[in-house]
Amino acid sequence: MPANSSKTSPYLYLQIASRIEKQIMEQVLKVGDKLPSVRTLCRELGHNMSTITQAYYELESRSLIQTRPRSGYYVCLPPGKRLEAPKPSSPALNGSNEDQDDLITKVHRDGSNKAVTLLSLGVPHTSLLPVAKLNKAMLQATRTVPGSGTGYDHVQGNENLRREIAKWSLNWGGVLNELDLVTTSGCMNALSYCLLALTKPGDTVAIESPAYFGILQLAKGMGLRVLELPTNSVTGIEIDALKKAISLHKIKVCLLVSNFNNPCGSSMPAIHKKEVVKLLEHHHIPLIEDDIYGDLYFGGSRPGTCKSYDESGMVLYCNSVSKTLAPGYRVGWVAAGQFTDKIIRLKLNHSISSATLTSEVVAEFLKNGRYEHHLRKMRQTLHHNSMKYIAAIASYFPEGTRVTQPEGGYFLWIELDKRVDTTELYNKAIKFGISIAPGRMFTLQEQFGNCLRLSFGLPWNEELEKKIKILGRLIPGAFY
Amino acid sequence: MPANSSKTSPYLYLQIASRIEKQIMEQVLKVGDKLPSVRTLCRELGHNMSTITQAYYELESRSLIQTRPRSGYYVCLPPGKRLEAPKPSSPALNGSNEDQDDLITKVHRDGSNKAVTLLSLGVPHTSLLPVAKLNKAMLQATRTVPGSGTGYDHVQGNENLRREIAKWSLNWGGVLNELDLVTTSGCMNALSYCLLALTKPGDTVAIESPAYFGILQLAKGMGLRVLELPTNSVTGIEIDALKKAISLHKIKVCLLVSNFNNPCGSSMPAIHKKEVVKLLEHHHIPLIEDDIYGDLYFGGSRPGTCKSYDESGMVLYCNSVSKTLAPGYRVGWVAAGQFTDKIIRLKLNHSISSATLTSEVVAEFLKNGRYEHHLRKMRQTLHHNSMKYIAAIASYFPEGTRVTQPEGGYFLWIELDKRVDTTELYNKAIKFGISIAPGRMFTLQEQFGNCLRLSFGLPWNEELEKKIKILGRLIPGAFY
Repeated sequence: MPANSSKTSPYLYLQIASRIEKQIMEQVLKVGDKLPSVRTLCRELGHNMSTITQAYYELESRSLIQTRPRSGYYVCLPPGKRLEAPKPSSPALNGSNEDQDDLITKVHRDGSNKAVTLLSLGVPHTSLLPVAKLNKAMLQATRTVPGSGTGYDHVQGNENLRREIAKWSLNWGGVLNELDLVTTSGCMNALSYCLLALTKPGDTVAIESPAYFGILQLAKGMGLRVLELPTNSVTGIEIDALKKAISLHKIKVCLLVSNFNNPCGSSMPAIHKKEVVKLLEHHHIPLIEDDIYGDLYFGGSRPGTCKSYDESGMVLYCNSVSKTLAPGYRVGWVAAGQFTDKIIRLKLNHSISSATLTSEVVAEFLKNGRYEHHLRKMRQTLHHNSMKYIAAIASYFPEGTRVTQPEGGYFLWIELDKRVDTTELYNKAIKFGISIAPGRMFTLQEQFGNCLRLSFGLPWNEELEKKIKILGRLIPGAFY
Repeated sequence: MPANSSKTSPYLYLQIASRIEKQIMEQVLKVGDKLPSVRTLCRELGHNMSTITQAYYELESRSLIQTRPRSGYYVCLPPGKRLEAPKPSSPALNGSNEDQDDLITKVHRDGSNKAVTLLSLGVPHTSLLPVAKLNKAMLQATRTVPGSGTGYDHVQGNENLRREIAKWSLNWGGVLNELDLVTTSGCMNALSYCLLALTKPGDTVAIESPAYFGILQLAKGMGLRVLELPTNSVTGIEIDALKKAISLHKIKVCLLVSNFNNPCGSSMPAIHKKEVVKLLEHHHIPLIEDDIYGDLYFGGSRPGTCKSYDESGMVLYCNSVSKTLAPGYRVGWVAAGQFTDKIIRLKLNHSISSATLTSEVVAEFLKNGRYEHHLRKMRQTLHHNSMKYIAAIASYFPEGTRVTQPEGGYFLWIELDKRVDTTELYNKAIKFGISIAPGRMFTLQEQFGNCLRLSFGLPWNEELEKKIKILGRLIPGAFY
């Protein structure tokens, strides 16, 4: 039975579905809003559970709402309003190696102005973090840790923390123990030690394209040649392109952000992860896996990792709590497989040990379930934010705009008409107190000039919606 | 009038001096013990101030006691029992570059056994640290810092901390402001960024000999050639040797621990500091100055730094609170002169930012005078410890043993008969639960095999005296 004739439908569930649809169409219920639970609606309407459930199934089948596991039903963008995903990238295999240091420095500098709305930075807003509970754990740590954490910790890292991270690794199919792990000062520090352990100046590192600018800058700064590979904005690195690159180049190491990639939001399907690990292993190329967004999934379960397919110890798995709990704590880690001893030595040489108290606080958070509890809430907020941001982009950006629909993480990757220059857009937007991340930041080549990354780590509100509306208006309409 | 005839001296002050001397000779008053203050003795003996003061002067002129500024008078080792200083080093200018990684790893590993008395490590004992006050400051920081320190701090480092360090630099003749400073994860991390900024693999770095093994390992690990230079155990690097080295080698950078050097305890006289800065400047060689022990002086005032003579921004000054306040906080800094931007970039690439809360706590400690207050006490304890350790060595080590008399810091550098092998001594001592640092750890060449470093960071007590006695007995006596 067609949906729009259901008003007078003899079926109760269709009548209910129809009423909800009307509210969605009239924007009483907006994208990202949560519907009442089945139980609540039963009680309020006086119907039985199966009727309400059927009504929700009907709306879901019409793509008007979607379920979020262990959370409920949410209004989503109607099919007609959905934007396409950005096209896969196609960087040159012998591309230039120009960095965008000036642009990146400018974005950083402008961003330090407190009045600016930072859509550019992938940083969790304080309101997303369990600050009071962290402070309580910190107070406790000063009481329980010997010497209140004034002493040097174990070179390899706080033992409690390593034990808890090892346990936590079960979530992504890891079978780590505390001796497999080395703590670091955040995830970039882990990546830095991995690159220091595996490369010397002049070596080639293969990465996704677009890629996080911090990784590009680190690699360039270390005198490495960066090989950017074609990447799909949904499924991540293109495996055929990686194969081709291996046949043409002497790749020393591969570095991938396997889940909810920055900036694309892409996640490698499990089968891709396995294939990439086996391919690289076959060619004796170590893989540095950055899984910093892996715990921020919007679906029912955590995505796996490349590391879980690692049988020869060639995958160096890096992570931190900088995107989930407390960037300012600087707590990260690496499980470096056969390179663990080398990493420990590097850490000892370059910084002796990690900070004791913050390690202990994170260990406690993991141990007593507070981390999982916090993440459940954070994931819901981020998912909700992402839907709101996408809906606003669909409303306010020119037709033809492409945007990712990430299933986790922090970022939307937006592709505008190819004649739009997002670095110019940045300059206009900053005058309105809006900071975006122009696409050119995420490559060393001439590409992504018409792309931008928006972070949805800021809490959604009307003010923010206005900013996105302004941003949409600043995009030169003449091209559309 | 000869001292030993003073018993029946008609002069009151000599009678008093004589009585104190007797107590010292009979070990009622022991080396390192504090004498009653002049005021107290006046009151108790019923004499006037000038008599007591004269008595103390008399004892001081006989080298039986010494003054410690703003603290009082202390019994020191009598002249006849004093040991000579170790001879200046004479490493080969084209020496080998063998590292002692296995030995260093062994010393570290053995040291993690809680039952071992760690005379090997230059770490402040918890009892030396103001733990309760630090905890209070930490609690306060969680209340006052925005977001309780969960957010990323400024790339260059916490602004309050940099301001306070800049003010503190007045103590050593610095004229820094907060923009001159970059915070780091401890002093080794500062040195690491300096070397990353200034060198590439194959370059030569000139350092003292003996030198801190962490510096040797860092330089070797980065693929640098280490040029060890002749060093005096009192005045530090030999300037003529440095001049000669510059004429023979392409030195890319020089790295010196200018005050209370590790392991020697040497401090460069002000005139040497100035001369070295001018010499290196003339040859366009940057100087990395590690001043991590500079605040731990036993004398009346803080020694100066090479940085204070730096007019061209070629001195990169590194420091931390790891030896003075809280190693586990990982708070260090560098004032890198003309290389500051390069260091900021390196820090951003390799670790994004420093931990927020611990930076804030250290800033508060500096700001409200708690740091200075704490240091006054710590210096006295360390000085007292050093006298006790030296006296024990004079008593229990074989005749002919040479030892430094450091005027600050943590370390005694001991030279035994040249046929003694201190690596063997280490193996014997560890069986008695005593860990020492064999001389071979402090060089990449074949030297210092008969030397060892003892740290006096552990609080002095009878147990410790016994350990030093055992250590003395383990030194093969046959050579003496």
